[in-house]
Amino acid sequence: MAVTLKDVAERAGVSRSAVSRTFTEGASVSKKMREKVLKAARELDYSPSLIARSLATSRTKLIGLVANNYQNPVFVEVFDLYTRALQERGLRPLIVNLTDESDPQAFVRMLHQYNVDGVIIASSTLPQGYLTAFKDARVPVVHTFGRASPNPDFHIVGIDNIACGEMVAQALFDHGYRDVAFLGGPKTSTSTQDRLAGFERRSAKIGLRSSVIRYAEGYTYNAGRRAMKSLLDEFEVEAVFCGDDLICMGAMDAARDRGIAIPEELGFVGFNDMSMASWSAYRLTTIRQPFKDIILTSIELIDRLVENPAYPSEVKLLPCELIERNTLRSTSV
Amino acid sequence: MAVTLKDVAERAGVSRSAVSRTFTEGASVSKKMREKVLKAARELDYSPSLIARSLATSRTKLIGLVANNYQNPVFVEVFDLYTRALQERGLRPLIVNLTDESDPQAFVRMLHQYNVDGVIIASSTLPQGYLTAFKDARVPVVHTFGRASPNPDFHIVGIDNIACGEMVAQALFDHGYRDVAFLGGPKTSTSTQDRLAGFERRSAKIGLRSSVIRYAEGYTYNAGRRAMKSLLDEFEVEAVFCGDDLICMGAMDAARDRGIAIPEELGFVGFNDMSMASWSAYRLTTIRQPFKDIILTSIELIDRLVENPAYPSEVKLLPCELIERNTLRSTSV
Repeated sequence: MAVTLKDVAERAGVSRSAVSRTFTEGASVSKKMREKVLKAARELDYSPSLIARSLATSRTKLIGLVANNYQNPVFVEVFDLYTRALQERGLRPLIVNLTDESDPQAFVRMLHQYNVDGVIIASSTLPQGYLTAFKDARVPVVHTFGRASPNPDFHIVGIDNIACGEMVAQALFDHGYRDVAFLGGPKTSTSTQDRLAGFERRSAKIGLRSSVIRYAEGYTYNAGRRAMKSLLDEFEVEAVFCGDDLICMGAMDAARDRGIAIPEELGFVGFNDMSMASWSAYRLTTIRQPFKDIILTSIELIDRLVENPAYPSEVKLLPCELIERNTLRSTSV
Repeated sequence: MAVTLKDVAERAGVSRSAVSRTFTEGASVSKKMREKVLKAARELDYSPSLIARSLATSRTKLIGLVANNYQNPVFVEVFDLYTRALQERGLRPLIVNLTDESDPQAFVRMLHQYNVDGVIIASSTLPQGYLTAFKDARVPVVHTFGRASPNPDFHIVGIDNIACGEMVAQALFDHGYRDVAFLGGPKTSTSTQDRLAGFERRSAKIGLRSSVIRYAEGYTYNAGRRAMKSLLDEFEVEAVFCGDDLICMGAMDAARDRGIAIPEELGFVGFNDMSMASWSAYRLTTIRQPFKDIILTSIELIDRLVENPAYPSEVKLLPCELIERNTLRSTSV
């Protein structure tokens, strides 16, 4: 920006290479040359940039933050927390916004080119190609919102989606519901699969009928709305477990637009507890993900991993809770 | 990440400085040394990082993206558009999330250290200290959503907030309203000030009574809700022009929670046309900002400015439109 290596070289009357060598640990440069360069640098108020220093120290403090769900307003909260927490540690987020058309290899190459210290992948719907590409690149990776597994390829930080699905089935049963539906996010999302698996497992155990299953095409209000319309056309249920708050709000509005009263005629449970869930137009009963803890844990982990890339992969699952608002009828009914 | 300059130096049996010089334009290195280094680099599949190359070319393709409104869901849309559009041009967003506690100088220094090519500031509520700090740093800056002025310090891309305020006053008048209120974002925001100025100017001209003025403390649902409650405690008006959709949704819910029918008893106009404005719980009549055009224009401008820092500052204001939905009573009433 203001002063560049070139300016220093010109002022010192030396080559750019001499300036570069002066600021490169272990590089060969004569004492006289070094003094010339340092004098010019001082005069120009030139601080050798982190980028130049990264050649020597191999740490750039850049962290690749890779996600593909920027359209979901819940990501505002996640993103705000990530950028602030990284900043507080002196780390800098370099953003990758994945789209369906993105080439995994190209992104890995790009992150490589910028010498990122590590990568945080914040997604539960990342195509396998990306995970493989990052693994092959041998870059430190923490996968937030990833699926737990006994032998994970990466560090995983997230929640136990299976246990959360069970929690919702139990809550619906305890509120007196017996015929319920599941309206999930995209079928390919591991979190959707796991929430459904836990929901079905507990349902079978306690006698909750939950065979009606629908998937929204994406994590959007309109996708939830469309899926709910088609569900209402075909089935009659007492309550719906939506695998995402935004989908749930679309589903609630689809029901209300048909004159269905919530919760008197139809109950809803969402997932995330995004800030809109508490709006008085929705007052959604939902599962709260501990976003702040998830994010701080994942940043701690990537920092440790950058220091010691051999640190063995681990899975950290943090507890969720059911936040009861107004979309389930009271237990006494 | 995988292969570093150090690895190449070891494999080639040369100093790190020799490797650095090989990849530095104009640096002195013997032909024999260069060949050794390039051979080792090929064998290790080492591509000289952009960061290393930036020492020579002084372009890093990094663009600082500075904002302070990550909490507003409308920013999801803005942010998604920014990151995609920058990526498509081969540019990389380096994110700065400003908080009230942030030190402007520290952020400018940080962006300097990473050798960003330029900075896009996306905010209408940036404290003056930041603008001055960026100006002093002589970094190319485009200020998106900034206030238009005849002699701007930076390139400005945004909308004509004064004209938009006038448009809303006219629309309310045309719908038959005569006693209306303004419920803006924070008073310190230049966009709030300008929307109000236009609103008052046109009101005075056409005989719309608009002396009730309130400000929400922030661009949040809850701030809008609180401000609307206090407005309803004190005044009786026929319609409210809210300077932001999210504030408007909070205000609408505050009114509905008191049993006030929208639009029969109270009309609302929002600002932005964020995706939630079309949800059936709100169906908000609002001013649409052309976010996509604003963002693409600002990226074009920063790109041009990086190539030619002497390019004189200009102001680009893009047209808005009124999107009519269901929160104003029909004109015939």
